[in-house]
Amino acid sequence: MGPDTEIIAGYKVYNEAAAADYDQSTTSSKTAEVHPLDQLSIPEIALAAKVVRAHYSNQQPATEVKFNTITLKNPIKTEYVAFRDTNGPRPDREAFVIMLTKAHCAVNEVIVSLTQEKVLEVKELHDVLPILTLEDLDICERVARADPRVVVTCAEIGLHDMNEVYFDGWAVGADERYGFDRRLQQGLAYWRASGMDNQYAHPLDFAVVIDTEREEVLRIDVRRVGGKRVPVPRVQHNFLPEFVRDGYVSDRLKPIEITQPEGVSFSMKGNELSWAGFKMHIGFNYREGIVISDVSVHDMYEKRQRMLFNRLSVAEMVVPYGNPDIPHHRKHAFDIGEYGMGLMTNPLQVGCDCKGAIKYLDAIMSTSQGYAAVLPNAVCIHEEDNGLLYKHTDYRDGTVVSARDRKLIISQIITAANYEYGFYHTFSLDGTYKLEVKLTGILNTVPLIEGEEAVPYGTKVAKDLNAHNHQHIFSLRIDPAIDGLNNTVVQNDAVSSEIPIGNAGNLYGNAFYCKKTPLKTSKQGACEYSHETSRTWDIINPNKLNPACEKPVGYKIISRESPSLLCKPGSLVWRRAGFTRKTLWVTKYREGELFPAGDYVCQSTGQPGWPSNETVVDWSERDDKIENEDIVCWLQFGITHFPRTEDFPLMPAEPLSVMLRASNFFEKNPALWVPPSSREADAASRDLDKCCEGTEKRGGVGVGGGKRGSKL
Amino acid sequence: MGPDTEIIAGYKVYNEAAAADYDQSTTSSKTAEVHPLDQLSIPEIALAAKVVRAHYSNQQPATEVKFNTITLKNPIKTEYVAFRDTNGPRPDREAFVIMLTKAHCAVNEVIVSLTQEKVLEVKELHDVLPILTLEDLDICERVARADPRVVVTCAEIGLHDMNEVYFDGWAVGADERYGFDRRLQQGLAYWRASGMDNQYAHPLDFAVVIDTEREEVLRIDVRRVGGKRVPVPRVQHNFLPEFVRDGYVSDRLKPIEITQPEGVSFSMKGNELSWAGFKMHIGFNYREGIVISDVSVHDMYEKRQRMLFNRLSVAEMVVPYGNPDIPHHRKHAFDIGEYGMGLMTNPLQVGCDCKGAIKYLDAIMSTSQGYAAVLPNAVCIHEEDNGLLYKHTDYRDGTVVSARDRKLIISQIITAANYEYGFYHTFSLDGTYKLEVKLTGILNTVPLIEGEEAVPYGTKVAKDLNAHNHQHIFSLRIDPAIDGLNNTVVQNDAVSSEIPIGNAGNLYGNAFYCKKTPLKTSKQGACEYSHETSRTWDIINPNKLNPACEKPVGYKIISRESPSLLCKPGSLVWRRAGFTRKTLWVTKYREGELFPAGDYVCQSTGQPGWPSNETVVDWSERDDKIENEDIVCWLQFGITHFPRTEDFPLMPAEPLSVMLRASNFFEKNPALWVPPSSREADAASRDLDKCCEGTEKRGGVGVGGGKRGSKL
Repeated sequence: MGPDTEIIAGYKVYNEAAAADYDQSTTSSKTAEVHPLDQLSIPEIALAAKVVRAHYSNQQPATEVKFNTITLKNPIKTEYVAFRDTNGPRPDREAFVIMLTKAHCAVNEVIVSLTQEKVLEVKELHDVLPILTLEDLDICERVARADPRVVVTCAEIGLHDMNEVYFDGWAVGADERYGFDRRLQQGLAYWRASGMDNQYAHPLDFAVVIDTEREEVLRIDVRRVGGKRVPVPRVQHNFLPEFVRDGYVSDRLKPIEITQPEGVSFSMKGNELSWAGFKMHIGFNYREGIVISDVSVHDMYEKRQRMLFNRLSVAEMVVPYGNPDIPHHRKHAFDIGEYGMGLMTNPLQVGCDCKGAIKYLDAIMSTSQGYAAVLPNAVCIHEEDNGLLYKHTDYRDGTVVSARDRKLIISQIITAANYEYGFYHTFSLDGTYKLEVKLTGILNTVPLIEGEEAVPYGTKVAKDLNAHNHQHIFSLRIDPAIDGLNNTVVQNDAVSSEIPIGNAGNLYGNAFYCKKTPLKTSKQGACEYSHETSRTWDIINPNKLNPACEKPVGYKIISRESPSLLCKPGSLVWRRAGFTRKTLWVTKYREGELFPAGDYVCQSTGQPGWPSNETVVDWSERDDKIENEDIVCWLQFGITHFPRTEDFPLMPAEPLSVMLRASNFFEKNPALWVPPSSREADAASRDLDKCCEGTEKRGGVGVGGGKRGSKL
Repeated sequence: MGPDTEIIAGYKVYNEAAAADYDQSTTSSKTAEVHPLDQLSIPEIALAAKVVRAHYSNQQPATEVKFNTITLKNPIKTEYVAFRDTNGPRPDREAFVIMLTKAHCAVNEVIVSLTQEKVLEVKELHDVLPILTLEDLDICERVARADPRVVVTCAEIGLHDMNEVYFDGWAVGADERYGFDRRLQQGLAYWRASGMDNQYAHPLDFAVVIDTEREEVLRIDVRRVGGKRVPVPRVQHNFLPEFVRDGYVSDRLKPIEITQPEGVSFSMKGNELSWAGFKMHIGFNYREGIVISDVSVHDMYEKRQRMLFNRLSVAEMVVPYGNPDIPHHRKHAFDIGEYGMGLMTNPLQVGCDCKGAIKYLDAIMSTSQGYAAVLPNAVCIHEEDNGLLYKHTDYRDGTVVSARDRKLIISQIITAANYEYGFYHTFSLDGTYKLEVKLTGILNTVPLIEGEEAVPYGTKVAKDLNAHNHQHIFSLRIDPAIDGLNNTVVQNDAVSSEIPIGNAGNLYGNAFYCKKTPLKTSKQGACEYSHETSRTWDIINPNKLNPACEKPVGYKIISRESPSLLCKPGSLVWRRAGFTRKTLWVTKYREGELFPAGDYVCQSTGQPGWPSNETVVDWSERDDKIENEDIVCWLQFGITHFPRTEDFPLMPAEPLSVMLRASNFFEKNPALWVPPSSREADAASRDLDKCCEGTEKRGGVGVGGGKRGSKL
């Protein structure tokens, strides 16, 4: 550790000297040795910042740089795949830097070669604004607190100590009063009775709009009701142990201990993970957080490793609120595109966030000064028992075989101001990938004035507190490689036979089948879920037939939690969050198309083909051929949340999930290599007579080569 | 143990002498002391049989009795509720006996008072047939094997040893060639290369129809293709350890040990269970299997126990197959109404079916002789860690609180010939009840002749093997008592505001709300799921307002896996499985209405108002008032299954679930009594600096009564 590291808000920050020190103390960080998909190391971030700073200070006039983000520039896919699959040359290691020229909103994208230590490319962008970092949110609070007009606004509702007033910095959403020359935030205002008090019990009736770069308050938007200010809700609703104290019931739940005395079943070489036949690379960046690449699975029948996915990540999300009162219409947070899922990640802890034997990975991001900021334990990797994997009993004599399933879970938890989201990327022994999301944290609240109703656009969760209706819509980006790069998506609809009852071919009217529609162009690739037909989609490889069923090998997308966007077509949210208009988009792979709401979501207008901020809607409109091509699937899923009183003051976790499941990918059940379970000894359980290691016969009837039958 | 107990196919069977012996050896079985909802005890079953036998042997002429089922007669609800809630008299303990007069199909229902030891009521039924027991299935196999015409049918396809031919007895579904004077089964035919061979790899091209009571083969239905017999698929596809031997990979998965060194967190008094504030009674019967009654939950705010449900059970299910070829149209098993979920239950084993500290309950059923048959470990009760319960981090300084959720799981696994179903009734700390079903076991298969296609009505899962498309549709019966007996169901639809964008009240087009429609009569109570509006239903108590939100207290039904029945309206399955026509039925509670496809499902026609076999469709048609009444909800959910090669030869478990979740039932998060998690020591995990017992601050910034903010 150099003398110049510092712990700030959970991050360990390395200034230049500390990074250099770190660089000399380790060899594992050498650029030549890292995996091309590894996140940038501490020295690599320091190096990128140094190169960029040097580049701008050499300009006339010298430009002062405010770093926004420094991250790995993803290698070009064809080059990377050649390296991975066919011993092609190692892709150059490059950093992708987004920066602001100090005190202005000029956004530059800079690509730095870390091997050549030089700037390769600078792109100056117009009419876009970059992501808000935690430092930016801090500016919002600081600036709002200090503003004399804000002080007066607070005093009007009886708040005279600005140390008790808090501002959650939010992306402004859209504010037609200002253009791209200002980097806006809205600060949602709260009061705290004390430093640890739950501020969401005390929302204030106004929001400020600030300019992040000029550090000034532009507007104070007060929601008056009948011309009146809304009083501060004063009742406290706390959940921290300081407040609950004797409110816990500690003897109701006996401990459950989960241990792995022989260690975990996965192994890691750098960030490459192997588990139960799966192989994958775990990456991380400030924006998507966890990125899982190069997912392959061992096939016990073909006796080889088979590719499934090039890359999986949660690429965007939006949380539109359903209350139309100004300024609440601005509340529709894109937590990934506007704030960064990586930047908002929690450092995790055994027993609190996951149980059992845990492997953690750190995340390495950057500060506005270009320092590496390391978040310890950002990613949790662990296994869980997953209940029954398979079981069958012969009812004649009770011959039984059963095995237990296992999950590998790669997870992170983020804090988005009031809300928490846990993202659990889960693999199980039958080849399934499941993304589970858990929503917890605190509802966004606003104050009610006496006599004011929360319905229909919200729920009164406590005296004077309104929690607005909202939706959470996520976009899972799936870059598939089902047994190879070229894939097709086939839409599956469960339908009754068209043959009328009583006619040949459907005498009894029970005939039904799976109607299969290959999606041929990216316009056709824009699909809605259909509950009536239990719609699913198969990502198939039309070039590989399953030897058993003689159908193309595939993986099925199963998602039944895909609410439609409730903001009206043409509305602000509908425009900005175009990706939510469809359950699934399938586009042709194009370099750099990673984020379905565009690269620059902050203050985006959603105007089609907006320069520097194309979205998945634009990519779909190109109407590329997507049949037997290198494609990308964008899957929307989520939940519509009408708040309940139970969600206050701290919301019980609400789970939702999507799955990708083998669909005629393997010749047979891919998990028959898993040995049947053995009975466990456990003092608290009834002692059993028999063990089910291997086959067990529960009856007394002889079972041999001949007739088998019970007497019962 | 008396000398006359016998272990048969996993059941311990007590003849009269053994039951008497058992009776004297125990006092806990005395009728006066048992809970009114407890399943019948061993002596009670023996007593009921004795009383019934005596009754019929005293008749002129004496009638020989074949017992079908002997089970608890549920106490009349009003009487039971009076006993439970207001110290009313203990309901009489009665047995409900269904029997056949030997060698005929005359079905009698007999009610026996166990306290008075006498027959209270005999009802002779016409044009109905009772459930098929495991003994009946055994008859099917025995009779089919011995029939000379079946021997010839087998010889034609090269099978000369009838010990190698197996018949799975199935309910016939419907066979218009025969009436109610015959108790039919269809025997699906298979070959086994050896006693332990997987017969579903060798389906034969015919089914027999037998008369179970007369023990005779009525028909042999051969599915010829182009006039030709279909050869026996001879390739073996086995999964028992005898066959797999070296095929297991035993070093891939390290053990996960789950222990509860301080014991479990639930306690049981008889069959009454208490856990984490929940209380409930666990019953069991031959038909529904697990029955959970009197579910209440402790409310930490109101400081009292509050009723949720009178009774929860899986009351019916149907598995229609989608291949129209005769005789496959007959395949639509009602596994509960035709076979009995209790009768088909597996005895369970620690480590195989569930892990951790397990409490098992035995099931007590009966044989055709009226003997008690005890199935050990029929019901598994255990706890599991359930991941995050709640978490929040203040992003300013990392102050964090988090707690872990816990599940109580009451489960059973059944074997329905080829298929296995696991039913997991799950309660969690936020007050949620979730029914999870896992499907595993073996696909139903039929042979393909060379050149024959499995598509579109099936999948070729291996050479010469076709697995037909099918659906699994379950019916969860919910007898709610949300804070009292009188409840109303309100349908919730998420909808955009009707106000056009740009108009007052919806300037930005983001307004949306929950449209609430109370269901007033049982015709209105017949509802479909609507994906477009993310439809849910609240079971509310209109007489109790939540003090925080001032809305009625309720529990929400959340079910997104509810495929429509794909058999056509008017078809055989549509008629017989009327309950599947709607996602939800709400009916007024009426005594004895327990099974939505009727009491007597075997050979039912589905004709509306069929004597002795009314269904939920009939009950709905009464159009009773269901608003603020004692009501019952029937929730259909399930899956449409187009078989995959991965499902063969043994299917990886496929999970689906429905949930009932508090919806403004509690004033606040009902789980805030759960203490925050502590960090766990685990050698395999990275050693952390800090513990999160209580609140933890991750930053170095002082947190006091004043300003709180990070420096990052």
